[in-house]
Amino acid sequence: MTSIITLSTDFGLKDGYVASMKGVILGICPKASLVDISHLIAPQDVRSAAFLIATVYTDFPPGTIHLAVVDPGVGTQRRALAIKAGGHFLVGPDNGLFSMAVEEQPDFEARSLENPLYWRSEISNTFHGRDIFAPVAAHLASGIAFNLLGPPCTPILPQWSSVHRSKHELKGEVIHIDHFGNIITNLRTTDVAEFSAGMSWTVTIGSQIITQFEKSYGHVEPRTAVALFGSSGRLEIAINGANAAEILKVRTGDHVLLYRIEDDS
Amino acid sequence: MTSIITLSTDFGLKDGYVASMKGVILGICPKASLVDISHLIAPQDVRSAAFLIATVYTDFPPGTIHLAVVDPGVGTQRRALAIKAGGHFLVGPDNGLFSMAVEEQPDFEARSLENPLYWRSEISNTFHGRDIFAPVAAHLASGIAFNLLGPPCTPILPQWSSVHRSKHELKGEVIHIDHFGNIITNLRTTDVAEFSAGMSWTVTIGSQIITQFEKSYGHVEPRTAVALFGSSGRLEIAINGANAAEILKVRTGDHVLLYRIEDDS
Amino acid sequence: MTSIITLSTDFGLKDGYVASMKGVILGICPKASLVDISHLIAPQDVRSAAFLIATVYTDFPPGTIHLAVVDPGVGTQRRALAIKAGGHFLVGPDNGLFSMAVEEQPDFEARSLENPLYWRSEISNTFHGRDIFAPVAAHLASGIAFNLLGPPCTPILPQWSSVHRSKHELKGEVIHIDHFGNIITNLRTTDVAEFSAGMSWTVTIGSQIITQFEKSYGHVEPRTAVALFGSSGRLEIAINGANAAEILKVRTGDHVLLYRIEDDS
Repeated sequence: MTSIITLSTDFGLKDGYVASMKGVILGICPKASLVDISHLIAPQDVRSAAFLIATVYTDFPPGTIHLAVVDPGVGTQRRALAIKAGGHFLVGPDNGLFSMAVEEQPDFEARSLENPLYWRSEISNTFHGRDIFAPVAAHLASGIAFNLLGPPCTPILPQWSSVHRSKHELKGEVIHIDHFGNIITNLRTTDVAEFSAGMSWTVTIGSQIITQFEKSYGHVEPRTAVALFGSSGRLEIAINGANAAEILKVRTGDHVLLYRIEDDS
Repeated sequence: MTSIITLSTDFGLKDGYVASMKGVILGICPKASLVDISHLIAPQDVRSAAFLIATVYTDFPPGTIHLAVVDPGVGTQRRALAIKAGGHFLVGPDNGLFSMAVEEQPDFEARSLENPLYWRSEISNTFHGRDIFAPVAAHLASGIAFNLLGPPCTPILPQWSSVHRSKHELKGEVIHIDHFGNIITNLRTTDVAEFSAGMSWTVTIGSQIITQFEKSYGHVEPRTAVALFGSSGRLEIAINGANAAEILKVRTGDHVLLYRIEDDS
Repeated sequence: MTSIITLSTDFGLKDGYVASMKGVILGICPKASLVDISHLIAPQDVRSAAFLIATVYTDFPPGTIHLAVVDPGVGTQRRALAIKAGGHFLVGPDNGLFSMAVEEQPDFEARSLENPLYWRSEISNTFHGRDIFAPVAAHLASGIAFNLLGPPCTPILPQWSSVHRSKHELKGEVIHIDHFGNIITNLRTTDVAEFSAGMSWTVTIGSQIITQFEKSYGHVEPRTAVALFGSSGRLEIAINGANAAEILKVRTGDHVLLYRIEDDS
C-alpha cells in the first residue's frame, strides 16, 4: 500500500528545508507518496496554516498523513503532536495548527510525541520539521501504531474566529484571501441558511454592499461583485475576472455582515 | 504500470487548490505519478497556458494525462473536455487551452465530459478542477476507456498567433517571456528556414535590430543580444547573462520581423 | 527498488522547463521518485546553488541522484559531469555546482558525460538539463553503472568562501540568507569550538554586536538578535519573530567576526 504524506509549511520555496524533510521521510519510508499543500504560508502565521489544512485535508483519502510545520516555538518547551481525526493523521507542533481541522471531528485522539524511537538519531534545536515531525510522519506511513508515538494529550485548540447572530444580522469575518483575490469568510452554508430562513439577504463588507448572490463567478457581468458559496462550503465574495480583495480593499480579519431583505408588503 | 498525470493551473502556490485536486486523484488512482507543470500561469490567461502545455507535453512518455485548469467560465455552460492526441490525454475546460497542443496532431479525438460516473459525487459550482477534471484524469490513469467519458465533440481551437510572410519580410510575434527574460517567438525553425532560403537575416523587435545568430547564449559576449533557436524549436531573442525582455522592453504580443540580407554584389 | 532523483535549478516556477526534465526522466525510469529541492536559485548563481545542494543532499538516503542545472555555459565547451560522493550521485554542468557538496567527501569520483548512449537522441544547444542531465540521471536511477557515463575527470572545485583565524578573532562570511531572513555564515560548529576554546564570545556583523548565544530562536525575547548553530551545523544570526537580514541590513558575502571575551580578572 502506498501511503500519502502531505506537507504544509512556512518554509518558502527557495531554501532546501522542505527537501530535507522529504529526504528524511524517503529514507524511512521509500514508498511514501509526497504531496505539497503549500510552503508559502506567511512566516509563523499559524492561523492561516490552520485554515489551509482544514480546507484541504479531507480531499485526501483516509489514512493520509498531514505533516505541518509552522513552528515559532521550535526548540522551546512547546509540545510535539500527532492527532488521529476522521481517519486522517495530523503531525506537527502543538500550537493550534490543527484546531480548524478537528472542529468537525469530535472523536479525535492526540498523542504527545515523546518516543525518541521514531525521531532522527540527532535532534537539532531549530529544525524539528526534519528531525522529529518528518520521521514520525514517515513511521506512521510505514505502518507503526499511532499509540506508540507517545502518551495521550490534550492539544491547544484556539478559536480563531467567531460568528455572531442576532435577530437582524449575521456577523462573520474574512478568514482568507486567495490567490485570485477571492474573499473567503468563516460563514458556512448552514450558518447562512439558518439565518436567512428562505429570505433574500445582502452582504456588507467595509462600505460595500453586495446584492448579487449566484452559483459561480461567470454568472455576473465582468467586473461585477458577487457573493457565492465557494468550494470549501463557505460564503465568498468575488469579482468576475478581477481581484476582489484589492478592489474592495478587504483584508483577513475584516468583518462581514449579512442582512435579510424583509418583505414589507 | 504507473500512470503519469501532469497538472497546469492558474491557482498559484499559496492556497490548497492544487493539493485538493491531487488528493482527489490519489483517492481514485493511488499509483498515479503526479508532476506539476506550472501553477503560476497568470490568472485566467488561457493563451499562456496553451503555450505552456504545447511546449512541454510531448517531453512526457505517451499515455501521460495532462490535466489543465485555467477556467474563467467554471460553473457556466462551457464544456468540459478530454482530448486524445499523439498518444497523450488532455483534460480540462473547453476554452482553447489545448489548441496549440493539438496544432500538430491532426488526428486528435475529443470527448465532452458528460458521464457523471467519472466525476466526484458532489459537484461544486466553482471548482470543477477538483470535482470533474481531477477525477476524470484519475479514472483515465486507472485505465478506463477514453470513449466512456462522454460523446465525441469538437473543441474550441482559437488561432492564438499568426505568422505572415511576404517577399521581403517574415513577421511573427512574441508568445512568451520566460523566467530568464528570454523572448520566445512563434517563428519555428521551419518558418525561418523557408523564408531565409539559405541567406543571412536580421531580426527587428521594437527599435532593436539583432544581427547575431548563434547556437546558444554563451556564444556571444556577456550583455550582448543574440537570436537563436530555443529548446522548443522556436526563434528566441536572448541577452547573454541578462534579462532580454527587460532590457529590450519587449512584451508578449509584440511583433518580430525578419529581413533577409540580400547579396547586392 | 525506487530510486530518488532530486532537482535543483534556476529555472523558476512559471515555465515548463522543470516539467520537461521530469517528463524525460519518467520516460526512461518510470519508477523514479522525483523531489524538488528548489527552482528559485537566482538565475546563473552557481555559488548559491552549491550551498543549497551541500546543505540538503545528505538528508536523502544513499543512492539518491541529485540533478542540478544552473548552467550559464550551456551549449559552449563546458564539461557535463557526474560525481559519486558518499554514496550519492551528483549530475550537472562542471562549473562548481557540486564543490561544497564534495568538500567533506575526499573519496569522490567524477566522470565526464561523454557517452551519448545515455543522452536524448536529439540534443538542443540551450537545454542540456532536458537533453543530457535528465536522461543521465534517469539511467543512473534505472541502475546503469556509473563508469559507463564517460571517462574519469577532475571537476572544477572553486573555493567559494574562506575562514580566517587569528589569535584574537575568527573571520567568516555570510553564505546564505534564508526565507525567514536568518543569516547563515560559513563558520561551522567545529570552527567556533576550536577558536573559543571554552570561552564566551561575541559576533560582530556590520555595526551590530550580538552577545546572546542560545539554542534556538524562541529562547530570546521577541525582536531580539541571537546567534545560534542552525540545522546545517553553521553559525547563524537570527532575530526572534523577525527578518534579521532586513533589520540588520546584511547580505550574502558580508563579513562576520567572532571575538573571545577574555577573562581579565
